[in-house]
Amino acid sequence: MSTSASDAGWMRTALGLARRGLGRVWPNPAVGCVIVAGNEVVGRGRTADGGRPHAEAAALAEAGARARGATAYVTLEPCVREGRAGPCTDALIASGVARVVIAIEDPDPRVSGAGLAALRAAGIEVEVGCLAADATALNRGFLRRVSTGRPMLTLKLAASLDGRIATGTGESRWITGPRARTEVHLLRAQSDAILVGAGTVRSDNPRLDVRELGMSDRSPVRVVVSGALSLPRDGHLAATASTAPLWLFHDIEADEGRRKAWSELGAELLEIPFQADGQLDLSAMMQRLGDRGITRVLCEGGGRLAAALIEDDLVDELVCYTAGLTLGASAVPAVGDLDITALQLAPRFSLMDVVAVGPDMRSRWQRRN
Amino acid sequence: MSTSASDAGWMRTALGLARRGLGRVWPNPAVGCVIVAGNEVVGRGRTADGGRPHAEAAALAEAGARARGATAYVTLEPCVREGRAGPCTDALIASGVARVVIAIEDPDPRVSGAGLAALRAAGIEVEVGCLAADATALNRGFLRRVSTGRPMLTLKLAASLDGRIATGTGESRWITGPRARTEVHLLRAQSDAILVGAGTVRSDNPRLDVRELGMSDRSPVRVVVSGALSLPRDGHLAATASTAPLWLFHDIEADEGRRKAWSELGAELLEIPFQADGQLDLSAMMQRLGDRGITRVLCEGGGRLAAALIEDDLVDELVCYTAGLTLGASAVPAVGDLDITALQLAPRFSLMDVVAVGPDMRSRWQRRN
Repeated sequence: MSTSASDAGWMRTALGLARRGLGRVWPNPAVGCVIVAGNEVVGRGRTADGGRPHAEAAALAEAGARARGATAYVTLEPCVREGRAGPCTDALIASGVARVVIAIEDPDPRVSGAGLAALRAAGIEVEVGCLAADATALNRGFLRRVSTGRPMLTLKLAASLDGRIATGTGESRWITGPRARTEVHLLRAQSDAILVGAGTVRSDNPRLDVRELGMSDRSPVRVVVSGALSLPRDGHLAATASTAPLWLFHDIEADEGRRKAWSELGAELLEIPFQADGQLDLSAMMQRLGDRGITRVLCEGGGRLAAALIEDDLVDELVCYTAGLTLGASAVPAVGDLDITALQLAPRFSLMDVVAVGPDMRSRWQRRN
Repeated sequence: MSTSASDAGWMRTALGLARRGLGRVWPNPAVGCVIVAGNEVVGRGRTADGGRPHAEAAALAEAGARARGATAYVTLEPCVREGRAGPCTDALIASGVARVVIAIEDPDPRVSGAGLAALRAAGIEVEVGCLAADATALNRGFLRRVSTGRPMLTLKLAASLDGRIATGTGESRWITGPRARTEVHLLRAQSDAILVGAGTVRSDNPRLDVRELGMSDRSPVRVVVSGALSLPRDGHLAATASTAPLWLFHDIEADEGRRKAWSELGAELLEIPFQADGQLDLSAMMQRLGDRGITRVLCEGGGRLAAALIEDDLVDELVCYTAGLTLGASAVPAVGDLDITALQLAPRFSLMDVVAVGPDMRSRWQRRN
């Protein structure tokens, strides 16, 4: 149990638990914890929906007295802040665990290193760095928000081989197959917020929920950017504005009547400034989302919003679903106009992985630094 | 040696030899042959450049007397036609081989089944079907020409994530990285002919050779479609028209002076009719290429020609090199306008495989039947 191979195995279990919390625990990080005594799991937990209780508390509660002398595997440095349930470091010390294996330190300056120090001061053997890369990848939304104040933004493109998201006549259902579309619902479920532009709301009348996973009760925050708030008030989003969070970002010139109408429907209205070039300040929007605790945003288009986000260098990852067909140059482009005057100035992304998803292909790319 | 696992191993060796002939042996199929005696290779051969001598002749010449009682592995049914070197079946019989393992039958009606029958009539043990799928894939150019009279057409797209092949200002060097570009030279070397449209010649002044592989002396036939023959006569293609094959497809209205000028430069001029819709009849062009013995064509654009070929359903395979950047809707599209009125009418392609190539991604797709 003290070999690093078995440590990695237990940490993988803890990361699997943590992953289940993605999209449900903001503003907190999705953490997983496994308590192992004599090569047997005696307790497991993850950050609960809404962010509390923490993973360690859940795992220690399950382990009870069997935690004494055991090893705790935690995907992120345990907290030392005073919280509703007391700091996790105190709970770990009180449980009598002999050893704590931690994937990564918490970059939050209120925690960073202090959790480790507290455990060590209590005589617990502490190791840091087990599956650190995996834990960093899992937590990149949380880590980005801690480091920049903004959530991680993933841009989803579902397009033909030639980068088109609808025919010239606007037909877009369906370019990708059912498996890809179900996967998108999973992506949504692992996001704190779903972001779309006004054009997509007008043309697609989307629900932006996770109904395909049988989780329509726990959809992420729906976020729409519409400078002028020119959005139909008889569509799915309006109909559900009072039952699931709907945040509308608009500019300072947006019509008062529209603001009032959407507010009465139950939406939250958020005003953002223009940039110097007259475009909406999407960086300010991302900052506002971060201020509200959002750590993971999935943007599902359309082409104009995608282009604006790319141009403002706000896209951390691209998830591209590519269907095996071509629609031609008169079809609707996945990415709208970009002001790229030279090839070397185009934002570049590195391929993370690519797989077949039913008849389609999914490739993931991350912004190259 | 008589187990099917070792048969497959030897046949794989024969297929590897055959592959080296791709792009060099038209109008003949690229065939490989291995002679195995007592678990040792005593002879090997492939169809020679230009199509003669055949693989069996080369392998048997190397084996000499050691072919007696041996097994011959051949990737395609041996020929029974009278040729310059005599039919391969006769040579196999005369060599005294005891057994011949064949991947696939030759669909050419002048051969099909007759080769097997001739061998069996001579008392040789004959087996057919070993690695048949691999041999079919390797020979799809030859097989397509036999079955339809036309070569196989592979369309290469090298584009950004949003399907663009140049910035709005026409900058295209380079969207993909050096490894992808070297791979394209390998694709060219395995093709009988490289096809481009007039726009690509005008904007890129391409060489369409395989210089990156140190094989500039053995470039495939360069084929250009230019209805009006409006091609610069001071570029790379014109400069090399007398030293490497250059075939220009034009319409019946092409200017006499241009025809004469290109002819004097060394190009071959091929007239093709218009279709009923006023577009050039690319199907007729493909038929002409087949008539001339071409079995494998690689089209390297541009967007207009790509669209016309897709629209006429002439594309058998797509090879997409995708670079991790976006260029936006004002950039040059990889596929030009397509007259697709409904999504379900778009030609569909099935994913064959996908891999990372340096920083880029290469996906291969084949026309779905």
